[in-house]
Amino acid sequence: MRPKALSGFPEFTPEGRVVEQFVLDRLRQTFELHGFASIETRAVEPLDRLAKQGEIDKEVYVVRRLHAEPGSTDDLGLHFDLTVPFARYVLENAHALQFPFRRYQIQKVWRGERPQEGRYREFTQADIDIVNVGELAAHHDVELPLVTLGAFERLHTDLGLPPVLMRVNNRKLAQGFYTGLGITDTAAVLRIIDKIDKIGPDRVTQSLISDAGLTEAEAKACVSLAQISSADESFVDEVRRLGVSNDLLDEGLALLSDVVRTARQHVPGRLVADLKIARGLDYYTGTVYETELQGFESSGSVSSGGRYDSLASDGKTTYPGVGLSIGVTRLLVPLVAKGHLQASRPVPTAVLVAVDSEDTRPEAIAVAEQLRSRGIPTEVAPRADKFGRQIRYADRRSIPFVWFGGVQGGEVKDIRTGEQSPADPAAWQPPQADLNPQVFSTWTQR
Amino acid sequence: MRPKALSGFPEFTPEGRVVEQFVLDRLRQTFELHGFASIETRAVEPLDRLAKQGEIDKEVYVVRRLHAEPGSTDDLGLHFDLTVPFARYVLENAHALQFPFRRYQIQKVWRGERPQEGRYREFTQADIDIVNVGELAAHHDVELPLVTLGAFERLHTDLGLPPVLMRVNNRKLAQGFYTGLGITDTAAVLRIIDKIDKIGPDRVTQSLISDAGLTEAEAKACVSLAQISSADESFVDEVRRLGVSNDLLDEGLALLSDVVRTARQHVPGRLVADLKIARGLDYYTGTVYETELQGFESSGSVSSGGRYDSLASDGKTTYPGVGLSIGVTRLLVPLVAKGHLQASRPVPTAVLVAVDSEDTRPEAIAVAEQLRSRGIPTEVAPRADKFGRQIRYADRRSIPFVWFGGVQGGEVKDIRTGEQSPADPAAWQPPQADLNPQVFSTWTQR
Repeated sequence: MRPKALSGFPEFTPEGRVVEQFVLDRLRQTFELHGFASIETRAVEPLDRLAKQGEIDKEVYVVRRLHAEPGSTDDLGLHFDLTVPFARYVLENAHALQFPFRRYQIQKVWRGERPQEGRYREFTQADIDIVNVGELAAHHDVELPLVTLGAFERLHTDLGLPPVLMRVNNRKLAQGFYTGLGITDTAAVLRIIDKIDKIGPDRVTQSLISDAGLTEAEAKACVSLAQISSADESFVDEVRRLGVSNDLLDEGLALLSDVVRTARQHVPGRLVADLKIARGLDYYTGTVYETELQGFESSGSVSSGGRYDSLASDGKTTYPGVGLSIGVTRLLVPLVAKGHLQASRPVPTAVLVAVDSEDTRPEAIAVAEQLRSRGIPTEVAPRADKFGRQIRYADRRSIPFVWFGGVQGGEVKDIRTGEQSPADPAAWQPPQADLNPQVFSTWTQR
Repeated sequence: MRPKALSGFPEFTPEGRVVEQFVLDRLRQTFELHGFASIETRAVEPLDRLAKQGEIDKEVYVVRRLHAEPGSTDDLGLHFDLTVPFARYVLENAHALQFPFRRYQIQKVWRGERPQEGRYREFTQADIDIVNVGELAAHHDVELPLVTLGAFERLHTDLGLPPVLMRVNNRKLAQGFYTGLGITDTAAVLRIIDKIDKIGPDRVTQSLISDAGLTEAEAKACVSLAQISSADESFVDEVRRLGVSNDLLDEGLALLSDVVRTARQHVPGRLVADLKIARGLDYYTGTVYETELQGFESSGSVSSGGRYDSLASDGKTTYPGVGLSIGVTRLLVPLVAKGHLQASRPVPTAVLVAVDSEDTRPEAIAVAEQLRSRGIPTEVAPRADKFGRQIRYADRRSIPFVWFGGVQGGEVKDIRTGEQSPADPAAWQPPQADLNPQVFSTWTQR
């Protein structure tokens, strides 16, 4: 009986995994080029650490030993993001870390949600965060989107992933604006404004009046603010025209201007100020980020994050941080499933060494060792079949080259063209493009 | 309050993680050079798949949604090895895989065991397996130890890890020998022989007589067999001298000879035939492997595996396989904790670009971008401090170079030597050895 897949726990075929590795390698390279250190944290945290404001979300997976002693209290849960474990790691290792501490973390996370389109129970995230002791300079809020957009730009260039658009806001800006209007319960307004994409500006205005007790003028001003968006610093003037003044608003405008101006220089067209971005109930305190794949906006954000005044705290010391998380599974699973991203082959092998007869297998192994010593992924044919069958073995795996003959010299056949030529196993090199599996998109053909 | 570490769930500091990444990268390269495709499987399996012969081991971690509906039956457990999930993956994807299928898999596994020296509740394994439909050629039993020993040899050369010694046996050999002696319950004999390292040959002889009902002559012959070990094929003559003849014994001797002879050619001194190796209660049916780190024998096996006549079966088709698993956490955690393996720096950063004043930060970012575009991991200083402080920032992280000045040209200082010289950000390149963190051992110094 063939086992059934578990809903919400996607697994790649070997070909899909080549695509994933290609992407993860490039994310890692980008993060390391920017000086982020890798860490990994354990999969589990004590359940009380996974609680939000004392309440444990129903989406947490609880982990228990099958035969745990009755009354044992080591209740653990699988982490549902990489921020909570990172905050705990910082507190636990603070004495051994150098601050500001820049780390990246690429791991799986688990959420017991009802599986549906674009929602998974197990998925991979790639996070970068910068955390400091006491205070963290504002320029890191500018730096993080540059790193993340740099990573996406590389995927766009190297692999044909559609370009992204990052939407950025600053909670200080909205909070200052609401306060400047004389509103006290700014959190309630933010929660309603967050629904603007779902229910539209008219119903948001109604809700602000009926549910948050705003006057019609106040409600309209709040909605006008949320409708401001610009790829340059012109959003500042648009906000000014709404006629509200407040120190926190000014601070938010200045911070957001810095982000937009710098991104425009380094990654033009990839970042906009969008004043409706609220990031729901997450506990951000300043800059907030959301990112969509252009043409796939309905799939939701592929990279989100923001600034925390207190990412972690041990009671005495506070650790502010800013972070961005890329949803690798959410990004790749639909694209691979639909065939939009493909690998040139499902195996690393560039060369199959044919075997004449089982007696000469040692000779074939020696040829393979010579090729491998120069970095060429090589397999030895599993059976001394007729050469036609051995070529078929390579063809079914899209292995480009088959080698005939021993270490004294042989012939190498490009099975795509049929071209066969004499070759020395101590010197022959395949074209660079054939050395490792390539990943490509099929957008342009559509 | 500083959170306490969870016993059995080791986490590396950033420096330790550099060591781990260095090792994992080399394992991956070795596996891919030999044509193994990467797969990853989900962390969970249905509980009944984790059962062995209908009985669920107490070491399994059960996973449940915190607010699962009462009576819901989606009982899942965290995988305790990578063989069980791989077998399930093969059955589930058989239609999409090409056989023989060669895969490697580097992932964490979980066991709810009592934590103790060398035992972990979460640890990383690196597995390679070859699986086929129906029958799997014997030469793969020779190939797998070559790949694994090649990986360890690379760690020995590149990083100074002590050399390993792989001990190999074949269950057919022992089973044929016992059968040839006229023993029927060969499994009982194997279980007792497996204790020879713990209780010694005399007590094993006694136990074979009193518990397994062997005659003294039979018991002595079995113990003599278990005491045979050789780095070449001479073990065959030693077995022959014990005067037992049996077809299965002959088959086992021939298979083991092939492994020893080929390993002796390719990785001399790293593999021996050791006829006491039994691999406990694991369900191997032919070749079995165990591997120790020389000088750290008491830490137990760092790589084990063997041949299964039936790695997986769907009732109609049987999939034989042979595999070897490297215990990455068991190998590295003690060596890193004792300082035996160290990284040259805990960050990827090779260059810190100093910042003159906050006004010139954009200039510093531009320099950093130029360096990164040529693959040089670069950070921009987080504060426009006095240069002495910025150098100290680099020094505390062992970042070797600090850059002063902008894109029009500047100076680069090697902070280890104090040497400072003019440099062009569009052309300067650090020495290859400084580009990425290096990992080295401290054995020779002890």
